[in-house]
Amino acid sequence: MPQQQDVSVSGALAHLVATSSWQDVAAQSREAKRSILNFFATALGSSNDAAVTTALQVLSPFSGSRTSSIIGRSERLDALGAAFVNAISANLLDYDDTHLDTIIHPSAPVAAPVLALAQARKLSGRDVLTAFILGVEVECRIGNAVSPGHYARGWHITSTCGVFGAAAACAKLLGLAENGIANAIGIAASQSAGIVENLSSAAKNVSVGNAARNGLFSALLSDGGYAASARAIEGPLGWARAMGDAPDLAALTGGLGKTWEIAKNTYKPYPAGIVFHAVIDACFKLRAQLGGAVDDIVSVTVQGSPLLLARGDRPVITERDARVSIHHSVACVLQCGAAGVLEFSKPIVFQPEVVRWREKVTAELDTCLPDGAARVSIRTRSGKILSEEVMSARGSLATPLSDADIETKLRECARSGEAKCDPERLIEAVWRLETLPDMAALVSSFSGRPS
Amino acid sequence: MPQQQDVSVSGALAHLVATSSWQDVAAQSREAKRSILNFFATALGSSNDAAVTTALQVLSPFSGSRTSSIIGRSERLDALGAAFVNAISANLLDYDDTHLDTIIHPSAPVAAPVLALAQARKLSGRDVLTAFILGVEVECRIGNAVSPGHYARGWHITSTCGVFGAAAACAKLLGLAENGIANAIGIAASQSAGIVENLSSAAKNVSVGNAARNGLFSALLSDGGYAASARAIEGPLGWARAMGDAPDLAALTGGLGKTWEIAKNTYKPYPAGIVFHAVIDACFKLRAQLGGAVDDIVSVTVQGSPLLLARGDRPVITERDARVSIHHSVACVLQCGAAGVLEFSKPIVFQPEVVRWREKVTAELDTCLPDGAARVSIRTRSGKILSEEVMSARGSLATPLSDADIETKLRECARSGEAKCDPERLIEAVWRLETLPDMAALVSSFSGRPS
Repeated sequence: MPQQQDVSVSGALAHLVATSSWQDVAAQSREAKRSILNFFATALGSSNDAAVTTALQVLSPFSGSRTSSIIGRSERLDALGAAFVNAISANLLDYDDTHLDTIIHPSAPVAAPVLALAQARKLSGRDVLTAFILGVEVECRIGNAVSPGHYARGWHITSTCGVFGAAAACAKLLGLAENGIANAIGIAASQSAGIVENLSSAAKNVSVGNAARNGLFSALLSDGGYAASARAIEGPLGWARAMGDAPDLAALTGGLGKTWEIAKNTYKPYPAGIVFHAVIDACFKLRAQLGGAVDDIVSVTVQGSPLLLARGDRPVITERDARVSIHHSVACVLQCGAAGVLEFSKPIVFQPEVVRWREKVTAELDTCLPDGAARVSIRTRSGKILSEEVMSARGSLATPLSDADIETKLRECARSGEAKCDPERLIEAVWRLETLPDMAALVSSFSGRPS
Repeated sequence: MPQQQDVSVSGALAHLVATSSWQDVAAQSREAKRSILNFFATALGSSNDAAVTTALQVLSPFSGSRTSSIIGRSERLDALGAAFVNAISANLLDYDDTHLDTIIHPSAPVAAPVLALAQARKLSGRDVLTAFILGVEVECRIGNAVSPGHYARGWHITSTCGVFGAAAACAKLLGLAENGIANAIGIAASQSAGIVENLSSAAKNVSVGNAARNGLFSALLSDGGYAASARAIEGPLGWARAMGDAPDLAALTGGLGKTWEIAKNTYKPYPAGIVFHAVIDACFKLRAQLGGAVDDIVSVTVQGSPLLLARGDRPVITERDARVSIHHSVACVLQCGAAGVLEFSKPIVFQPEVVRWREKVTAELDTCLPDGAARVSIRTRSGKILSEEVMSARGSLATPLSDADIETKLRECARSGEAKCDPERLIEAVWRLETLPDMAALVSSFSGRPS
């Protein structure tokens, strides 16, 4: 056993980041590319959302040299600004990836600054993949060390831990030595922020964008000579304890470089809360059983765990409510035969037929069903009852999305988001990312203009 | 009694900010001008410090239109960047103002963005004073509501509460309506960060600079249409509880608009920890008693409260240690006859004569003395013992610095900091701030170039 009180967490994490080369992380690159494809998918899907447009307009007068592209748009900002805006669009609809142990959405805060910096400095695809994998590692390990209390206390963990991943990844990309990487991580501890109370407002976007922007800023300041306490994370007046946690140091540093958090990443097939995915899957199965003859259905009963009911048995007043509604999850599949971005957007959510479908749905507790599972039963006009039970929803670790599923998600998001983008070229470029000498091919495919 | 659970803290604070005009705050303007003079003093004193130069160099490539001056220098940045850099220089040496109830240094995070924004938008001196007074009010009231637990837990309260004051002040300057001001305060809750563990490093500067920069950013985002939870501060998963505090809502909203926190601001005569000021004052008195014949002194005993000894009975290894050393506080006054920026800087701190002086000093506990007081006794070669007791140090609320003291501090800081500055014109401009149509006269006097 190492003397844990002597460990500098930022030092130990920096040692991993500094000493890991492409060879050390290459085995993780397939999952990293799936994560990056999913990152582009969700960013393209929201690229013209009002929240993204506002962020871009507010930051534009404060941009230095416009080196870095906004995903799905022709505008550019400096790397700090582009990191902020792209992290927002990737996370906006909660359709991005999920590290299930912590409920961190790993890619938005890490991929956004890595890509913005790599474009500005003409760095290689191999550099990007290496930095991204290491950044996600730092982000999720710090999250593991303070979960689940951290999120439960009110910290938006994607924001608060994302800044560490962004700092580590950008410090690696900048080629900082081990001590410089440790300082970047320590400086990030003084920039970690974001509260759950604000999740239902645009203020949430600000903390996610800041995680990306300030992680890069930490690395730039460290490169300029700024230092931090070696015990910024675990010290008696440090980050973890100020935030209310006694950090689990074993989770932070145990098995470093042997196990990889990116391997546990998951991707959502539907832009809805993750507990509703089993409901949606069950409805698709029922729709198939009926051969699409959904007009025969007179009522629907959804059974699930207390978590499912607590999260989703509620009236749909806003578009955002629909994304955490049992009733709308059923309605969109049965009425529209789909559960994509369009089916969770205003025009469909408030369509009279869809409202009527939601009224047919009743939620019931079944304490025998685990979190993440659901049983859906329909009753037809003729009195027939059909039932489907889903224990592992599509997109879970047990039933992961296939590569083709993620590609399809990207194409659909690009279309629904009306993004400036060539999805086929983008998909092709991500799959061969480690061979790209710089970001030019990638950039031209996700921004509709040459790098 | 209002139903406290129904109060929106950001709403109540925004109501004050939105409805207060110059007439409502004019009675606070003298203390506000003293605060602003002291702000310029400390910013000028550190304007060429390496930490300031680094921040400026790192941000320069990321600056938009360079509308706003860096205090004491000819460079400019956009308003967000200038807010960041000027807050750093004002706070760098812990020589800035102190709101004693919370140990918030109120001016650095609020004055820096207010001045940067006012210069960029050509706003008037009256607007600046009004916004500054209201921003300090919001900052310190939120601090009151979570003190003293907040700082003790590891939060750097100047950073974590400063962002709220900056947001409120900038929202006022931008002319936002009440709801927009509330949203700016709520967005700030998702950007509040900064830990005590990092105070001994440059990472501290980052959280202070961010408080200023992100407060302005909150206001700009609110102006662009971003919203926040009405209960971002006090909600069950909001800022105060995430940070570990059950906020004292009475402290937040009781007597709003009737009592003013700026009235409790204090200014340091010496660039040392505030508990050492009584030691320094006592040594000046002893030096006067001896007519400067300090070579006769063979030993010095300093008596004080447990707080004084805990903070200051320690070896001086770095320049920073000297600012929190009982021994150096004695040594610089007795050896040099002064306790200014120069006497707490490297060349003096490590001068062999000064090192020998520190070795003559012994610290002793006297539990009868309150925090902030000290008794200093000297023994001369002839065996004579002289003693001085100081109960209220210069600069405390009981013995405040005079206007002339603050002016002298500004002149000395401008000189020691080798700042580009015309101190006399700057002093004159601040005293008639409410008559200035824009920032031109001020800017040219603190940056050595026309506005």
